[in-house]
Amino acid sequence: MSERIEIYDTTLRDGMQGESVNFSVEDKCRVVEQLDALGVDFIEGGWPGSNPRDVAFFERVRTLKLSGARIAAFGSTRRNALTCDADPSIQALLKAETPVVTIFGKSWLLHVTEALRLSPEENLEIIADTVRYLSARVPFLIYDAEHFFDGYRADPEYALKTLRMAAAEGAQRIVLCDTNGGSLPDFVAHATRQVIQEINVPLGIHCHNDGDVAVANTLAAVSAGAIQVQGTINGYGERCGNVNLCSVIPNLQLKLGYQVLAPERLQKLRTVSRFVSEMANCALDSRAAFIGDSAFAHKGGIHVSAVERNPATYEHIEPEAVGNRRRILISDLSGRANLLAKARELGLELNDEQRVLEELKRLEHDGYEFEAAEASFELLVAKLRGAHQPYFELVGFRVIDEHRGALMPMSEATVKVKVGSHIEHTAATGNGPVNALDNALRRALERFYPSLTEMRLVDYKVRVINSTLSGTASLVRVLITSSDERIVWGTVGVSANIVEASWRALVDSVEYKLTRDGVVSICSEPENEPGTSPDSVQEALV
Amino acid sequence: MSERIEIYDTTLRDGMQGESVNFSVEDKCRVVEQLDALGVDFIEGGWPGSNPRDVAFFERVRTLKLSGARIAAFGSTRRNALTCDADPSIQALLKAETPVVTIFGKSWLLHVTEALRLSPEENLEIIADTVRYLSARVPFLIYDAEHFFDGYRADPEYALKTLRMAAAEGAQRIVLCDTNGGSLPDFVAHATRQVIQEINVPLGIHCHNDGDVAVANTLAAVSAGAIQVQGTINGYGERCGNVNLCSVIPNLQLKLGYQVLAPERLQKLRTVSRFVSEMANCALDSRAAFIGDSAFAHKGGIHVSAVERNPATYEHIEPEAVGNRRRILISDLSGRANLLAKARELGLELNDEQRVLEELKRLEHDGYEFEAAEASFELLVAKLRGAHQPYFELVGFRVIDEHRGALMPMSEATVKVKVGSHIEHTAATGNGPVNALDNALRRALERFYPSLTEMRLVDYKVRVINSTLSGTASLVRVLITSSDERIVWGTVGVSANIVEASWRALVDSVEYKLTRDGVVSICSEPENEPGTSPDSVQEALV
Repeated sequence: MSERIEIYDTTLRDGMQGESVNFSVEDKCRVVEQLDALGVDFIEGGWPGSNPRDVAFFERVRTLKLSGARIAAFGSTRRNALTCDADPSIQALLKAETPVVTIFGKSWLLHVTEALRLSPEENLEIIADTVRYLSARVPFLIYDAEHFFDGYRADPEYALKTLRMAAAEGAQRIVLCDTNGGSLPDFVAHATRQVIQEINVPLGIHCHNDGDVAVANTLAAVSAGAIQVQGTINGYGERCGNVNLCSVIPNLQLKLGYQVLAPERLQKLRTVSRFVSEMANCALDSRAAFIGDSAFAHKGGIHVSAVERNPATYEHIEPEAVGNRRRILISDLSGRANLLAKARELGLELNDEQRVLEELKRLEHDGYEFEAAEASFELLVAKLRGAHQPYFELVGFRVIDEHRGALMPMSEATVKVKVGSHIEHTAATGNGPVNALDNALRRALERFYPSLTEMRLVDYKVRVINSTLSGTASLVRVLITSSDERIVWGTVGVSANIVEASWRALVDSVEYKLTRDGVVSICSEPENEPGTSPDSVQEALV
Repeated sequence: MSERIEIYDTTLRDGMQGESVNFSVEDKCRVVEQLDALGVDFIEGGWPGSNPRDVAFFERVRTLKLSGARIAAFGSTRRNALTCDADPSIQALLKAETPVVTIFGKSWLLHVTEALRLSPEENLEIIADTVRYLSARVPFLIYDAEHFFDGYRADPEYALKTLRMAAAEGAQRIVLCDTNGGSLPDFVAHATRQVIQEINVPLGIHCHNDGDVAVANTLAAVSAGAIQVQGTINGYGERCGNVNLCSVIPNLQLKLGYQVLAPERLQKLRTVSRFVSEMANCALDSRAAFIGDSAFAHKGGIHVSAVERNPATYEHIEPEAVGNRRRILISDLSGRANLLAKARELGLELNDEQRVLEELKRLEHDGYEFEAAEASFELLVAKLRGAHQPYFELVGFRVIDEHRGALMPMSEATVKVKVGSHIEHTAATGNGPVNALDNALRRALERFYPSLTEMRLVDYKVRVINSTLSGTASLVRVLITSSDERIVWGTVGVSANIVEASWRALVDSVEYKLTRDGVVSICSEPENEPGTSPDSVQEALV
């Protein structure tokens, strides 16, 4: 089999219906460029008749140079009381001047009679009329049959009639939508086969995930003959989301042998997924199939040792095919095999496994977690091996957050550190206590370690551990993500005090940057031999 | 159809293989009680041969009074070099003294020859011998055929042979495992049908979600004749997780008509899901099918008005069937219909929609989000209607976080507030700046408003907005969850300063508690008429 399947991305329209998902016009344009680079065929950009932000987007997007993707504007069939010429939403679709227009119409009598309060015949006339009007005026017209599967279940003959109208009047694709997301794969396959026998226009499938089977429904429709898949990156969308293209595409291409993306483009899948999640400001589910951080992460000791021998033992595909990678998780469940595998993955030598294991267990018991903080793990191992040189020593810090009346609140930090034989005492303000601390620490260190100017913090996450126990008095775990021009790294700090936890993660981040750059510590002058005793390890960590 | 399907929960064993999922012995016992109340048939508690925590658990769990669930201990077939009598893992299984024992064996020659380095015949002998030994000694023995589907794909005859061994030697269930999670539904259905023709023992199905089709695979196996479903609450598990029982159970019962749980127990599904996510300390995916916060959340304007008329228009099941509820989301995408529906849901009157909409848009533009902070939304509406009485006025606060040498860091807050004509100036320490502020604020207010002693903070979440731009200097959104003896409520604060954002959320939380309790403000004495001008609204919010 090597049929070609079209991908129609609706992240920027249906995806934005998802809770907490929002894109600015600028975000949308950047997402368009990424989707085009990934190689999707259609990008639905928005609903020009519905909000002004989308009108601005369609003006902007015309200026982008795309390599192959076609932009689609989305809208509804005309209103009952208006002609297409007089319907402002239909006219807005034309004004968007996109190479593709997608309109949706009703297939389910419940919606026709209850939501729209129309007669079945009026609805058919609206579909026919709108498709006729638009197909004469736009280069490529797609008809989305909203609620097709619910409509087909309730009254198959009427649902098919709506499709026949759209087909007769010139729609170039007819898309079967499981709008409420409640259908199951066997039914989707059955209904799609019935439609294919009746309708001569190529079919698409548009699923929602309310039954947690949107991917299987989509695959079932393709197996039954649909040639276009509509979905969103990361499965964003109303309620439980649309079908996740990051799951559908690899299944179609790697498992079922369809032609979807060029292999080198498929390898961008994870990058595009992460980019969109950043733009949407929604943390990516680490368990997401194919592209999630945990998708090829091995924790159980038996699994780890088998995967080390042959990855096929516990991996269903090669992670690299979708731009992902194998990870070995450090955990007190895991035992020696994981630890050694992790050390190999990071290119670390472990002279004293037992000691590293015990220290890890102690720290994990205290609330540390190294799964998202590999930089802190590397530093820990280096410290335990005596191979780490501290770059400075903390004498003390203080942060003051002050709010007086209507003034903007202000944070001020003072930091006193010892660098070799020098004592630096600096102060800095910031938009918050951690920002102020970061500024003061850099001010103290940059004259000794100039490469720190390249480093920046890209994310900062706080997690309360055992949050049910005592609210803000619980332990706090801070994860900091930093980057320089080359790489991104994560560090962790844990404390009952959020500022202290942040400080620990900040210090690890600075030390990791300097270690990685091969900077020699000013503290490693002969009179300041780096400590390798358990005491100094403790202190460096705490 | 009304066949009975058994549910076998492995959250406490396979679920714990998931990244970031950890349960203490105490956690595990509490989860067992919840699962028993939900009505699952089997609860796999752990692997007594693999770690000491699980041994302790099996001792503890014997003291629990369960209504119907049977506890299972999990382990491997015996090692090649040992007899069952001499194998410590097999003996640990017996010592756990559970009513059910589950052992797994290998069905896939790749694992037999590469991971275990055994001959195919040795593996068959190990399976036969272990099943024979255990089925003579434990009340109920379940055999998990690990990697069955990969094994069947590679060598169907050998894979079936391993099952025949287990069946012949007395296993009471044979469970087909898609251990690598890469199979697709059509293949799972086909292979299951083949097994049913060969094997007379009732079958189970155990799927992983690496292809994002675990739910569909499970449903396919049940349709083909399997009568037991193994899975985890919230889909926790190695890599992409095990099949999510919170999706499988409602699909089986509400859509396919199988008998799984009593309807009144099915209504506990969401509560159990949330409980387990709290215990696992893993935030629940709001988009999770059936039980997620967003599963019946409506944002698009068209959807909202249709659902208001007839929920079936955009809901595949009744949310109450699984203990969930409909939510109307407040968003700048949503328009008037959503706002009015939301107000109705909360029992609020809206006299001046346009003003509320504009203020909402302004705040959302500034980074506020009310989707998880309905208490802040209610306060906002009350303020805009002039119906809110501020309970105090902030004069100023200051927080100092100090770290000196090896001492534990300390946070101290001073708060000055005006309550009616009284000025209160208090100080308090805390484990962090927010905790200190919370303590100082309560100290200032409790003598005026004693019911505040009932209130506690249950969670505290920090989210950096636009985090890619400037790290710790970005805007910060703080969500605080509070509770008293009766209800739980969420509030939100946004600022560039994390302490300030936390303060705003804290103040909303206190004001919501007092409003809800019907407490009259001491500030509402005649000389302190509550302000309804835009100025005072701004100030109350900021």
